[in-house]
Amino acid sequence: MKEYEAFLKNLGVTNAIAQDIIEIATVLVVIAIILAIIKFILSFAIKKGADESVKPLLYSLFSYALYIVGLLMILHILGVNTAGIVTVIGAASLAIGLALKDTLGNIASGILLLFLHPFRASDYIECGSLKGKIVGVGLFNTTLISLDGLYVSAPNSMLWGAPIVNFSRNPSRRLDLAFGIDYADSAETAMNEMKQLVDNDPEVLKSPAPSFFVSALEDSSVAVNLRIWVKTANYWDMRCKYMKAVKERFDEVGISIPFPQRVVHIVKE
Amino acid sequence: MKEYEAFLKNLGVTNAIAQDIIEIATVLVVIAIILAIIKFILSFAIKKGADESVKPLLYSLFSYALYIVGLLMILHILGVNTAGIVTVIGAASLAIGLALKDTLGNIASGILLLFLHPFRASDYIECGSLKGKIVGVGLFNTTLISLDGLYVSAPNSMLWGAPIVNFSRNPSRRLDLAFGIDYADSAETAMNEMKQLVDNDPEVLKSPAPSFFVSALEDSSVAVNLRIWVKTANYWDMRCKYMKAVKERFDEVGISIPFPQRVVHIVKE
Amino acid sequence: MKEYEAFLKNLGVTNAIAQDIIEIATVLVVIAIILAIIKFILSFAIKKGADESVKPLLYSLFSYALYIVGLLMILHILGVNTAGIVTVIGAASLAIGLALKDTLGNIASGILLLFLHPFRASDYIECGSLKGKIVGVGLFNTTLISLDGLYVSAPNSMLWGAPIVNFSRNPSRRLDLAFGIDYADSAETAMNEMKQLVDNDPEVLKSPAPSFFVSALEDSSVAVNLRIWVKTANYWDMRCKYMKAVKERFDEVGISIPFPQRVVHIVKE
Amino acid sequence: MKEYEAFLKNLGVTNAIAQDIIEIATVLVVIAIILAIIKFILSFAIKKGADESVKPLLYSLFSYALYIVGLLMILHILGVNTAGIVTVIGAASLAIGLALKDTLGNIASGILLLFLHPFRASDYIECGSLKGKIVGVGLFNTTLISLDGLYVSAPNSMLWGAPIVNFSRNPSRRLDLAFGIDYADSAETAMNEMKQLVDNDPEVLKSPAPSFFVSALEDSSVAVNLRIWVKTANYWDMRCKYMKAVKERFDEVGISIPFPQRVVHIVKE
Amino acid sequence: MKEYEAFLKNLGVTNAIAQDIIEIATVLVVIAIILAIIKFILSFAIKKGADESVKPLLYSLFSYALYIVGLLMILHILGVNTAGIVTVIGAASLAIGLALKDTLGNIASGILLLFLHPFRASDYIECGSLKGKIVGVGLFNTTLISLDGLYVSAPNSMLWGAPIVNFSRNPSRRLDLAFGIDYADSAETAMNEMKQLVDNDPEVLKSPAPSFFVSALEDSSVAVNLRIWVKTANYWDMRCKYMKAVKERFDEVGISIPFPQRVVHIVKE
Amino acid sequence: MKEYEAFLKNLGVTNAIAQDIIEIATVLVVIAIILAIIKFILSFAIKKGADESVKPLLYSLFSYALYIVGLLMILHILGVNTAGIVTVIGAASLAIGLALKDTLGNIASGILLLFLHPFRASDYIECGSLKGKIVGVGLFNTTLISLDGLYVSAPNSMLWGAPIVNFSRNPSRRLDLAFGIDYADSAETAMNEMKQLVDNDPEVLKSPAPSFFVSALEDSSVAVNLRIWVKTANYWDMRCKYMKAVKERFDEVGISIPFPQRVVHIVKE
Amino acid sequence: MKEYEAFLKNLGVTNAIAQDIIEIATVLVVIAIILAIIKFILSFAIKKGADESVKPLLYSLFSYALYIVGLLMILHILGVNTAGIVTVIGAASLAIGLALKDTLGNIASGILLLFLHPFRASDYIECGSLKGKIVGVGLFNTTLISLDGLYVSAPNSMLWGAPIVNFSRNPSRRLDLAFGIDYADSAETAMNEMKQLVDNDPEVLKSPAPSFFVSALEDSSVAVNLRIWVKTANYWDMRCKYMKAVKERFDEVGISIPFPQRVVHIVKE
Repeated sequence: MKEYEAFLKNLGVTNAIAQDIIEIATVLVVIAIILAIIKFILSFAIKKGADESVKPLLYSLFSYALYIVGLLMILHILGVNTAGIVTVIGAASLAIGLALKDTLGNIASGILLLFLHPFRASDYIECGSLKGKIVGVGLFNTTLISLDGLYVSAPNSMLWGAPIVNFSRNPSRRLDLAFGIDYADSAETAMNEMKQLVDNDPEVLKSPAPSFFVSALEDSSVAVNLRIWVKTANYWDMRCKYMKAVKERFDEVGISIPFPQRVVHIVKE
Repeated sequence: MKEYEAFLKNLGVTNAIAQDIIEIATVLVVIAIILAIIKFILSFAIKKGADESVKPLLYSLFSYALYIVGLLMILHILGVNTAGIVTVIGAASLAIGLALKDTLGNIASGILLLFLHPFRASDYIECGSLKGKIVGVGLFNTTLISLDGLYVSAPNSMLWGAPIVNFSRNPSRRLDLAFGIDYADSAETAMNEMKQLVDNDPEVLKSPAPSFFVSALEDSSVAVNLRIWVKTANYWDMRCKYMKAVKERFDEVGISIPFPQRVVHIVKE
Repeated sequence: MKEYEAFLKNLGVTNAIAQDIIEIATVLVVIAIILAIIKFILSFAIKKGADESVKPLLYSLFSYALYIVGLLMILHILGVNTAGIVTVIGAASLAIGLALKDTLGNIASGILLLFLHPFRASDYIECGSLKGKIVGVGLFNTTLISLDGLYVSAPNSMLWGAPIVNFSRNPSRRLDLAFGIDYADSAETAMNEMKQLVDNDPEVLKSPAPSFFVSALEDSSVAVNLRIWVKTANYWDMRCKYMKAVKERFDEVGISIPFPQRVVHIVKE
Repeated sequence: MKEYEAFLKNLGVTNAIAQDIIEIATVLVVIAIILAIIKFILSFAIKKGADESVKPLLYSLFSYALYIVGLLMILHILGVNTAGIVTVIGAASLAIGLALKDTLGNIASGILLLFLHPFRASDYIECGSLKGKIVGVGLFNTTLISLDGLYVSAPNSMLWGAPIVNFSRNPSRRLDLAFGIDYADSAETAMNEMKQLVDNDPEVLKSPAPSFFVSALEDSSVAVNLRIWVKTANYWDMRCKYMKAVKERFDEVGISIPFPQRVVHIVKE
Repeated sequence: MKEYEAFLKNLGVTNAIAQDIIEIATVLVVIAIILAIIKFILSFAIKKGADESVKPLLYSLFSYALYIVGLLMILHILGVNTAGIVTVIGAASLAIGLALKDTLGNIASGILLLFLHPFRASDYIECGSLKGKIVGVGLFNTTLISLDGLYVSAPNSMLWGAPIVNFSRNPSRRLDLAFGIDYADSAETAMNEMKQLVDNDPEVLKSPAPSFFVSALEDSSVAVNLRIWVKTANYWDMRCKYMKAVKERFDEVGISIPFPQRVVHIVKE
Repeated sequence: MKEYEAFLKNLGVTNAIAQDIIEIATVLVVIAIILAIIKFILSFAIKKGADESVKPLLYSLFSYALYIVGLLMILHILGVNTAGIVTVIGAASLAIGLALKDTLGNIASGILLLFLHPFRASDYIECGSLKGKIVGVGLFNTTLISLDGLYVSAPNSMLWGAPIVNFSRNPSRRLDLAFGIDYADSAETAMNEMKQLVDNDPEVLKSPAPSFFVSALEDSSVAVNLRIWVKTANYWDMRCKYMKAVKERFDEVGISIPFPQRVVHIVKE
Repeated sequence: MKEYEAFLKNLGVTNAIAQDIIEIATVLVVIAIILAIIKFILSFAIKKGADESVKPLLYSLFSYALYIVGLLMILHILGVNTAGIVTVIGAASLAIGLALKDTLGNIASGILLLFLHPFRASDYIECGSLKGKIVGVGLFNTTLISLDGLYVSAPNSMLWGAPIVNFSRNPSRRLDLAFGIDYADSAETAMNEMKQLVDNDPEVLKSPAPSFFVSALEDSSVAVNLRIWVKTANYWDMRCKYMKAVKERFDEVGISIPFPQRVVHIVKE
């Protein structure tokens, strides 16, 4: 700054007020130029494939920061920024920092979500107790729509602080169904019947291959499992289809799904 | 400040007390002007569509901040702000910051709630353990009325720190009813009967289309689901209506909703 | 301060000790004047409708703060406040701030509770695990009396940090009673009987209107609901009255409230 | 300090070591005087009705603080307190503050407990998971004795951070007993029988009046409640007395307290 | 320090290196003297009744602190402690403070445990999820042995942050046994039988007196309680003894302890 | 810096602007050289066996840090870095630090995960509620794929803050199966039958040796355990195989797996 | 430093660059010497019985710290460490401190674990939800192997922040087995039979002596306990042995372990 003042003096601007005006103008021009450069770089980055929603977010962040720096520089040029105000700012910064802590954390999380994109718009995700289809990521919060059509708004830092399970990202998904059959029935037969159903189904992926196994010996039944891989898009259709199909096939071939069982030793009194 | 003093001296104000009075007056005038400008900008912003309740909130925030800055500047002009008091302020700022941390966080949350408005007055929301219809958002807390008519007051930061589910925002909503029918009954028939009920109902939305499926094979019954989309406004009426209608239709066509079942193997002793 | 010393010198007070005494006296007088002004403003505010209990709370807060400032200024005048003590104070401020953090937070919460009054004396509230009738709000803690007559004391910050449900604030309240009737009985008849009971009762509010509906198909019974709005004051009387009245009416008309039911398939061994 | 040194010089004490000794002696004398004044004020406050245990607690707090200040002043007089040590103290203060945070919080809580006394010695309290009769409040912890005779020690900040329920403070207390009678018995009769028992009992308070009501329709029984107010001192005796008396009266008049009930639909296979 | 240097110059030590050596030697001698004084004070305190384990703990704390101060003073004398290193120390102090926060908190807790001794060696305590007999309290952690003989080590701050229940401290302890007798049996008789057992037992304390009462009307039985006070040392023996004795007495006089009961309403289908 | 300026002056560069340009160029060259050195060291470290993914992570970290240092040095050379901006940076650093706290913690955790590698790509791990196969570790988050094919993204600090159980790291793993056999059957026989199955199986590791034992006497059955060590790769196959094989062998030799049992004492009324 | 420069000037080194080179060389030599001394002291300490794994841990800690100090001193000698960089470091230190907080806490915990060794390699420990055999303690994390052969890695601060139960440390351990026998059987007989089994067993420790008692009167059975002390090494063998032996002995002498019991009062409808 001092060199700039010296430079102005060399140009013959010796009047203090004229100097101030020129300095303020210079600050405003420099800020305008920097903003234009940022705008250009962001447009360029988007052409190169960056996420569309990054631009307004980063631009508003940078412009607010520049406005604040500019205001402080102008106050400084006008000689306002005396020790008293600096002390007050210093003393206030802790309180402000603590008050805005979560807000700033949300902004940081929002930027990370946009750059690392663990999800994109219309992905269905679960993150802690939060579930829903992504509508959009904002500077502070993310908007979702729950499966039963409700509007959900969650702070960004919540989405960033817990593991996100994205159900829509990967192309295929495993479908696991357990059926509890009678101890008197043959698990072997049950598994063969399920295998026949699956073998003729083009919607069941060949790799990873379907598998059938006994998963547990439960209190009243033997748990027989069907494990197939399907396309993510028709997971729910396949689930409903096999739930019904296996039950009907078991009914046909006489494999029963038993009610809870208990052995009672009667003592008359 | 020094330039201003020099400027005053140029005007011939050399008496220290006169200088102080002029400087204090200048501070008060500048604050009054800034407040007027803020008022104007806020009125303008509301005309352009901003939320009505933003104005008093932001205006009181800015005016309190300006009063404090003005008081400090006047004390500085009077020469009171010596190193001792500055040190005390510095030492106190941490304690004050920690004491007011939550209070300041509430204010920050209140402003974000008003600007991002994840809910508006009379929306029914759930947010963590908090449930109710919004009455209003204040500087520190939000007031709600619970569905059973109780007054609820919650700190703003609580509403901002957890996902908000807004039940009133979206125009349509999914209605999901599961009926547990007997293993001996036909799930196919049950689903057809439900379909007939729904097909003749103009209040059921056509898109997304209604669906009917077997969702689980439970201990004592087969869970058959009815899934339709309805207008948010008559969700509860539709829910009561179909709860009763499906039960009555099942009674008519002889599909039974079974009591819990158990197989008992009797051993006499 | 230096200007004041210069002013004193102009008055001819050149002796250092005399200067000190005059300065200390000035400090004490100024504090007394400020306290008187605060007292007057508070009295004025209460006449204008502010909460009665605000006055002693704020007055003691301001007077303690002024005493501390005054003590520091007197020490400064006496020349005690050297760098060593300042450093110690600086070093201690963090520890003190951390130690008093919760205490200061309680004071801030107390002031907010008094100004925003989410409850007033003798309101029954629930706030987290805390339940009771408000007895009074102090500088640090709030005193309640539980419904079974026990004395409860809770820190203010606890009351301010969780949603407060105030049962006494709103004039009317919803009464919801669910009765589990037999699957064999007619839900229609049950709802009609309840409607007749309610229709003749002047204590049931007309708006919002009473409603009757099937809320769930449970394991052993059909849940039939009675939902009426009553005055907050006689909520509990109405609750006991309808609990008994509906049961007696059901007994009269032969609608039964069944015991838990189970279907048992006997297998002899 | 400089004025004091100048004052000493005026008295002709020019030797540096002699100055130091006089200054140290002055510090010690001043501390002794302040301690004597504090002692006098505390004694005076106790005569005026303050809690007895406040005196040693506050006295030791003030004396330790003065010893530390005195030590630092003496080191300063001896010229030890150079920049190096100050920096070390500054750097260490954070760590020390963090280490002693909980300890200092306990002291602050202890003082608040003594001044606000939400409980006094031999009161039975519950505070979170903590239950017992108060034995005494110390500078750091509170000692209790549990109802089954065990020694319990809890940090003060724990007692101050959660709502305290004091069972001994209020003179009267509500006694609530629920009896589950058979659906076949008359709730009316049961309530009349209980009323007769209560009416003849002088130990039952007249105000608030006793009340009797049906509180719930449970699975196997109707819950009939007895609600009376008794003196806090004989709460437990009254509880045992009515538990036994009501049961015996019900036995006499033939009102039964049923076992859990279940309706079983037998299907032979 | 400067006065000391001046003092040395007066003695004719003008060579810088000689000065440094003398200064360092002085620092070492002063530290040795202070340590000797601390040792003496600690020995004296123990003779006066302080806890034996306090001495090594406090001595090592003070000696490490003095070593660090000494090292810093020597570096200062050698001129090493320039602004650069000071800045680094300042910058590092926060990180170090945060890293050692818990460690320092453990030391503070350890000292408080030794001075307030809520437990002594071989006391059995419970503190949160921690249970065991105390083996010893160290600078950082406390060692216990669980009742089944396992070695347990817990950080001191954990023991200090939760209420400690000390089972061995108080000389007597309450023994509470509840027996569920048949609804058909007389609670009066049961209580008399228990009273006879207790009356002849010298190991049951006379004060507080034994008591017998009905504590609850449970689903399948009436809970009858035996409440006696015993010496802490033979609590477990008494517990086993009365568990067995009461059961045998009940068997003799024909009071039965019933199995869970249920009323079943049979409906044939 | 000043020495460098003096050095430039010696070279005859006295013009201020020329000096600035040369200094900036020097800064840029030095940064480029340092980056090249870092690149070389990282390549060298990878050749020596370091984890491949360490290089881009550390390189981008160092380059961003250097860019920021360079920018600050250039601003300093241009004389921009005046006290005002420094104060703003100082005041902002706390807020920024708090906002980025979690983000920086994630970076630190990411680096530790790469250097200590408690898991490598395609290992199956469990860490708190997080389960899945590792896909990759990034600067901020770790990507996994759950066993049922879903995409999971978790912040690094979450993986570093809880114990990680790595199922794929160790070559062998214990397989534990408990079978509940009838109280009437011989546990000895059951264990012998299991032993015969295991003895002939080459896939069961010889060391640690298989073991067979009674683990619990349960309500309705005796739990007999099979404990063998298998290769981690075929753990699930072995589990399914023995689940089915033991059940079939028990069926052959007549050892039964009983339903839940109950003794019922019938009382007719 | 200045004295050293003066010393060099005395030696005739007046050229600034030569001075810098000599100073840097001195710094490097001093660091090398200090490292050699540390190495020697550590080797010496291990000979005297310190934990082997302490050496590399402490050596790397000290060497990294010295490298950083050395780098800063060299930069200082070269005149790089100007105010700008110092401010940046100051501003960054908070963020860095917060980012590395947990990491530094892990290092502190690791050192405490090595010095206090609440466990040694191959001890089986439980600490919160963490269970396993210790493999090794590193600078940041501890590695364990779970009983079923899985690799487990836990941050050191987690192990230090919760009570550690070490199952392998103490030489003997209590074995507690509870058997639920029929109410109709004699608890006396059952305890005698268990006593005979134990008396003939050399592996049961004589002190503390075995004990046998009735621990509870449960719903369907009387719990009879066997409590013996065994060597830690053969705890599990003894547990399996007595589980089987007591059951077989009870079968022989006709003491039955009953199924859950219920009394059913039949009401025909």
